[in-house]
Amino acid sequence: MADSKPLPCADGDPVAMEALLREVFSIVVDEAVLKGTSASEKCHYSIKKGAAFLGLGTDSVRVVKADERGKMVPEDLERQIRLAEAEGAVPFLVSATSGTTVLGAFDPLEAIADVCQRHGLWLHVDAAWGGSVLLSQTHKHLLDGIQVADSVTWNPHKLLGAGLQCSALLLRDTSNLLKRCHGSQASYLFQQDKFYDVALDTGDKVVQCGRHVDCLKLWLMWKAQGGQGLELRVDRAFALARYLLEEVKKREGFELVMEPEFLNVCFWFVPPSLGQQRSPNYSQELAQVAPALKERMVKEGSMMIGYQPHGARVNFFRVVVANPALTRADVDFLLDELERLGRDL
Amino acid sequence: MADSKPLPCADGDPVAMEALLREVFSIVVDEAVLKGTSASEKCHYSIKKGAAFLGLGTDSVRVVKADERGKMVPEDLERQIRLAEAEGAVPFLVSATSGTTVLGAFDPLEAIADVCQRHGLWLHVDAAWGGSVLLSQTHKHLLDGIQVADSVTWNPHKLLGAGLQCSALLLRDTSNLLKRCHGSQASYLFQQDKFYDVALDTGDKVVQCGRHVDCLKLWLMWKAQGGQGLELRVDRAFALARYLLEEVKKREGFELVMEPEFLNVCFWFVPPSLGQQRSPNYSQELAQVAPALKERMVKEGSMMIGYQPHGARVNFFRVVVANPALTRADVDFLLDELERLGRDL
Repeated sequence: MADSKPLPCADGDPVAMEALLREVFSIVVDEAVLKGTSASEKCHYSIKKGAAFLGLGTDSVRVVKADERGKMVPEDLERQIRLAEAEGAVPFLVSATSGTTVLGAFDPLEAIADVCQRHGLWLHVDAAWGGSVLLSQTHKHLLDGIQVADSVTWNPHKLLGAGLQCSALLLRDTSNLLKRCHGSQASYLFQQDKFYDVALDTGDKVVQCGRHVDCLKLWLMWKAQGGQGLELRVDRAFALARYLLEEVKKREGFELVMEPEFLNVCFWFVPPSLGQQRSPNYSQELAQVAPALKERMVKEGSMMIGYQPHGARVNFFRVVVANPALTRADVDFLLDELERLGRDL
Repeated sequence: MADSKPLPCADGDPVAMEALLREVFSIVVDEAVLKGTSASEKCHYSIKKGAAFLGLGTDSVRVVKADERGKMVPEDLERQIRLAEAEGAVPFLVSATSGTTVLGAFDPLEAIADVCQRHGLWLHVDAAWGGSVLLSQTHKHLLDGIQVADSVTWNPHKLLGAGLQCSALLLRDTSNLLKRCHGSQASYLFQQDKFYDVALDTGDKVVQCGRHVDCLKLWLMWKAQGGQGLELRVDRAFALARYLLEEVKKREGFELVMEPEFLNVCFWFVPPSLGQQRSPNYSQELAQVAPALKERMVKEGSMMIGYQPHGARVNFFRVVVANPALTRADVDFLLDELERLGRDL
């Protein structure tokens, strides 16, 4: 973890890639007392779910504070580790997030890596959503520090638009860890007496048995688009999100949740009836706007936009600009349609 | 478990189906001391792998004896349960198999169900391979007893030819067990304030987050082919396997491993050089035939046939006749090609 050899993804080398479920983070389950992983309160729910599945229990996941922008607070990580140790637990893994689900926040990886190094902890980065930013020279600084991670989750089916599902687990490990963790040596399926090097067979290293060759989709797309083509895709998404942001700021009736750092543009639509004079029940009333609008757009068949509450913030829309086929005209339509559908709410 | 209401699959009701990974058998992990599941020695390796993943450990899986046809011996199941209990373990699940991977064996479900009922154990049937036989009036007797199972795994992507992957977990439970086991109430993804009944949303009941709607493939296929069309597919596969079997018996140089009860036709190809006079090293020499032939067919690009050893039996071919596009001409080609490629071995 201390060495600074870049991860394979930074080199764009898909050969080193291990396609796996995003939920599965590899842990050598027989090498240590397993008690204590740490993740930010804005991390993906799969971290707790994974802990439950692995038999560690959700109590083994310590939740680290996030700041108001949804980024993990390294000082609180340090504090949680000391607290866990004081209770006799043995922390072993920190899961940071590059691109949280709702706000698109990037955890400060360099500071988190320092904490991990000090305590000898495995640094996992859930870059399922944000990992593709590494392909952009302009924006890859958002992931500074990821080069010292021990493992990285990356979903090319999100920002890059590969067909669902296409998930990669990138590992620094070169000791065939996945085979050691998952290998079950079922000789009736994974013959060893083949005419080629059976180390090339991945079947015994993964969780599932019969499964798609999902990484082929990434390989084909990469071959077709090239590194530059994929970079363009990322940069265009940033530009279009910027356009959406400016439009949201310009238009009356739209209220930004916060200045985004990624492609998640989060805002409230405030109908005229709520906007004029703020009632004492403003928050409660605002919370009902997004579900009502969602119902209308679904029944109309015109759009599908996600909404959710977040901490103390009531239901707001989260528009994620990722589809490479989107244009400014689509963004205009989206905002016009929200206005049209929400006018009389 | 004791009641005899048929499982949804027997009714052909896909609505009741829960698409899940085959590896994941649902266990209420917080309700009991988890020690002791039982599976036959011919069961799929995913049973042990699942136990490892769930944190139960592979030692928690007790292996039950199988007879020479690969079927679980119910008397040994009874014995293993008593042994486990005597050691202070708490058995909770028996995994029977309908259609083992290599021999295509069907465990005697009725006798196994009796044992489960006596001991109050959850009966899981891994019918990933054999489950589709239920669609055939002629052959469904192979699964007699499955109607009392608590859970059944079924992969329509195997015998029915649905696109990989399409896996179902059928549950007798009507208490929303999957939600209680897997639900993580991530409010930012699974909104509860929707305009329709959110009980219809399956996202929070399954293991993965972003995933294919794999059950759609089954639904579409069922709509297109109808119950009769799928039955025909199963019956034709049985007829073609029967043809392959008769040809294998007729031809010199082919030796049947055993009379099949399903679509797995297992045989050795014995090259002329081995067939004349059996040397003291016959078994060792025979073991090398299948890998050598496999290398030749792969390099030739003409066929792909699986082989494996099985208990004391050395490497033999396992031809599984399932593809609905196969004809007798393909079976003839397969045997001719094996003769051609293996003639000088």
